Amino acid sequence: MGKESVGISVSKKDDFSEWYTQVVLKAKLADYAPVKGLIVLRPDGYSIWESLKSTFDRKFSQNGIRNGFLPVLIPESLLGKEQKHFAGFNPEVFWVTHSGENEVGDRLALRPTSETLAYTLYSKWIKSWRDLPLKINFWNTALRAEIKATKPFLRTSEFLWQEGHTVHTTEEEAKAEVLKILEIYKNTVEEELAIPVITGKKSEKEKFVGAVYTTTMESIMPDGKALQMGTSHFLGQNFSKPFEVKFADKDNIEHFAWQTSWGVSWRLIGAMIMVHGDDQGLVLPPKVAPTQVVIVPIYNTDEDKKRILEKANEIKQNLDSKQIRTHIDERTEMSPGYKFNDWEMKGVPLRIEIGPKDMDKQKIIVAKRYNKEKTDLSFNEIDKIESILDEIQSKMLENAREQSKLNTIDISDYNEFKEKIAKGGFFNAPWCGNQECEEKIKEETGADIRVIPFDSEDENRNCVYCNEKSTSIPIFARGY
Amino acid sequence: MGKESVGISVSKKDDFSEWYTQVVLKAKLADYAPVKGLIVLRPDGYSIWESLKSTFDRKFSQNGIRNGFLPVLIPESLLGKEQKHFAGFNPEVFWVTHSGENEVGDRLALRPTSETLAYTLYSKWIKSWRDLPLKINFWNTALRAEIKATKPFLRTSEFLWQEGHTVHTTEEEAKAEVLKILEIYKNTVEEELAIPVITGKKSEKEKFVGAVYTTTMESIMPDGKALQMGTSHFLGQNFSKPFEVKFADKDNIEHFAWQTSWGVSWRLIGAMIMVHGDDQGLVLPPKVAPTQVVIVPIYNTDEDKKRILEKANEIKQNLDSKQIRTHIDERTEMSPGYKFNDWEMKGVPLRIEIGPKDMDKQKIIVAKRYNKEKTDLSFNEIDKIESILDEIQSKMLENAREQSKLNTIDISDYNEFKEKIAKGGFFNAPWCGNQECEEKIKEETGADIRVIPFDSEDENRNCVYCNEKSTSIPIFARGY
Repeated sequence: MGKESVGISVSKKDDFSEWYTQVVLKAKLADYAPVKGLIVLRPDGYSIWESLKSTFDRKFSQNGIRNGFLPVLIPESLLGKEQKHFAGFNPEVFWVTHSGENEVGDRLALRPTSETLAYTLYSKWIKSWRDLPLKINFWNTALRAEIKATKPFLRTSEFLWQEGHTVHTTEEEAKAEVLKILEIYKNTVEEELAIPVITGKKSEKEKFVGAVYTTTMESIMPDGKALQMGTSHFLGQNFSKPFEVKFADKDNIEHFAWQTSWGVSWRLIGAMIMVHGDDQGLVLPPKVAPTQVVIVPIYNTDEDKKRILEKANEIKQNLDSKQIRTHIDERTEMSPGYKFNDWEMKGVPLRIEIGPKDMDKQKIIVAKRYNKEKTDLSFNEIDKIESILDEIQSKMLENAREQSKLNTIDISDYNEFKEKIAKGGFFNAPWCGNQECEEKIKEETGADIRVIPFDSEDENRNCVYCNEKSTSIPIFARGY
Repeated sequence: MGKESVGISVSKKDDFSEWYTQVVLKAKLADYAPVKGLIVLRPDGYSIWESLKSTFDRKFSQNGIRNGFLPVLIPESLLGKEQKHFAGFNPEVFWVTHSGENEVGDRLALRPTSETLAYTLYSKWIKSWRDLPLKINFWNTALRAEIKATKPFLRTSEFLWQEGHTVHTTEEEAKAEVLKILEIYKNTVEEELAIPVITGKKSEKEKFVGAVYTTTMESIMPDGKALQMGTSHFLGQNFSKPFEVKFADKDNIEHFAWQTSWGVSWRLIGAMIMVHGDDQGLVLPPKVAPTQVVIVPIYNTDEDKKRILEKANEIKQNLDSKQIRTHIDERTEMSPGYKFNDWEMKGVPLRIEIGPKDMDKQKIIVAKRYNKEKTDLSFNEIDKIESILDEIQSKMLENAREQSKLNTIDISDYNEFKEKIAKGGFFNAPWCGNQECEEKIKEETGADIRVIPFDSEDENRNCVYCNEKSTSIPIFARGY
């Protein structure tokens, strides 16, 4: 087994796209399914999703949100009930036309998103103010046929996500919920995946078509492109009216309810791979790593084997007791060098090496995956491993934040904008708020408004395109 | 809000089927989706599933099984690769023929089960004995078009389940895995849902068509019908051959692998409702109850309100600290009687009542849902609640076991069999092993062989149908 065949054959810098795909496949996170556009998750990939899921579940639950289940099939007639929303998804919908040999009556859509289905039910369940707020989250998949080439986690025709749908008696409460969720999204992505995000609103042009407005969190990837990391929508009464989501208030008068919907998907895993990975493969933030510490015992004689494996097991037990996910690589048919490469490819945050000389000196070697730093740790310092993992987690976020800053440019001059956009990056540029300017910029540079950061109003500057007074300073970027 | 409109309008004894549906809907576990044959789960229903899921996940993980993700779409060509298997599902398959306006080439099936898809991937992932055993579980849904009337949790066209798929180097190891899983299923259902099961093999006629043999666990429902609670299949090399799931052994020679597959579905929740529910509604075993204890404060004056709510909160804090899921019903617009009925409908295992007189006597009233027993508990006995919940859990299993025994009949005479089968029940009846007898019995009585209990060989008896020497004593019953 040569190193060539298992390692990544291109560098992250030279061919980012190919590098990405190789990391996904060779770290065994995912693989292609037999149907174009679909992927499967292998245990290491799914484990990262489960880790995120459990963090979100905890935070959702603290916020009074409970989980439910919705079926994947939605009748065409229902999907079309909110027209703008339907038009947005129509070209991407998978249609079921037959069951067995029989044609189904109303064609059935595979859920592109569940607003229409959820709100049909909500309108039955909600009678009075006592039933509100109603806050349910659904862990499922969404299906949207992709015509472009598949990119695992980033562009697939079926993807794992969660979609939350809440209903409120007042506009204020619904708007507050939108922001509460966005905050949960932001702190989870930053704390668990070590990826900094910028939050704010989408422009009218870029919002979810069914929403009054969309809030978003965006991150910048190492290739200079922006990635939408999650969205939280204020739906106003756009759905409650056609779907008759009404409640009798304390005064016994019926009102249309105020709603929100919001979601993040496994795209977050794609972002994590892109932001932290390197030419040796995946680099996992400790909090979401399926294996956090791998111990590689090194020996040639039976005597060394015995004492080294004993030590390895002692260390593992110590770490297990602290809920640190630890694995001893006892494979006999591979060399230590092969194992190092293997675990580096898989992104395990910390590697412990123990050889005969280490045993003699009563120490181990710890190698950090993210910066390749190797240090000695004496046997009585094993307890430090927990804090080393914490330090890795925070340093990875710090590094990503720095990288993100380097790729963010404050810009006022359109010529400079056009010149620099080819290299990618986040462009803070003043904008008059006019959709025409937004469209012209997109047309001429390929850059969208990714996000209008909260509190980015600045009356003293002028629109980067038309030079009229600006109303905000959005972030423009080319996106995924 | 009259009691009539919210309570169950039929008795469990008189109209079991209607009683069941009303419990599901009125306890707010589930509701019908707009597409015929599909249901949605409301938070209380989904929470029971999540509880089962977490127990299974823990036990699977202890057994070296990890989770993965598979997409819902399977190409027709792949589904047909194992012919018998395909024939079994063909009439029930939902077919996707279009994405947007475009026809898809190979029609896409919505997963009726994932053997074909999983093993296509396994054949890529497995190269050598080092990659085995490979044990992956998938929490997803299966889709099989139902023509008969929908029964929530029991008969729906999409259902939540888990499907596990393992690959082994030897036949023995695979067979042992089949039994290990069946044992996990059995102890989970008995310990968590308080439902006794009988385990054994399916007959050739009743086995999963793709399997060499199927092991099963079966339970008897209060209406005398049998319910299949879960199955674990030994697939032998039936799939590894057409799908080329091969491995190079230590001798470097390629072999076809030995496989298993196994699953349980939300049907388990249906069984729990049927076995434990009563005319007042749902009765939940404490271990899976979303709310385990509900506290209903009773007061008329502000002064009483203050001291009673204080006490209620104190008790809740105590129970919370023991991870007992506790809720205080502080609704002001309903009477205590209404609240009692409401929580009885929802099946909450233990209700605590605190009124002014109780406060004066330094005690609370605890009412057990499953047997309606009410007892006093002094303030310094609150710590007993934990053991009361444990006792409820074990008593519910005991009661169900007794009920099950009463419905199980040892029978040798076919005339007696035919006479008694109308009333339902499990019939232990000797059988010669001949499929003709099995088919005749089914034709004449409507009863299938539900399970051939392990170690039911008994050479001294004669087949209940043909009188030839028996080879086993299966359980015959009419089933769901």
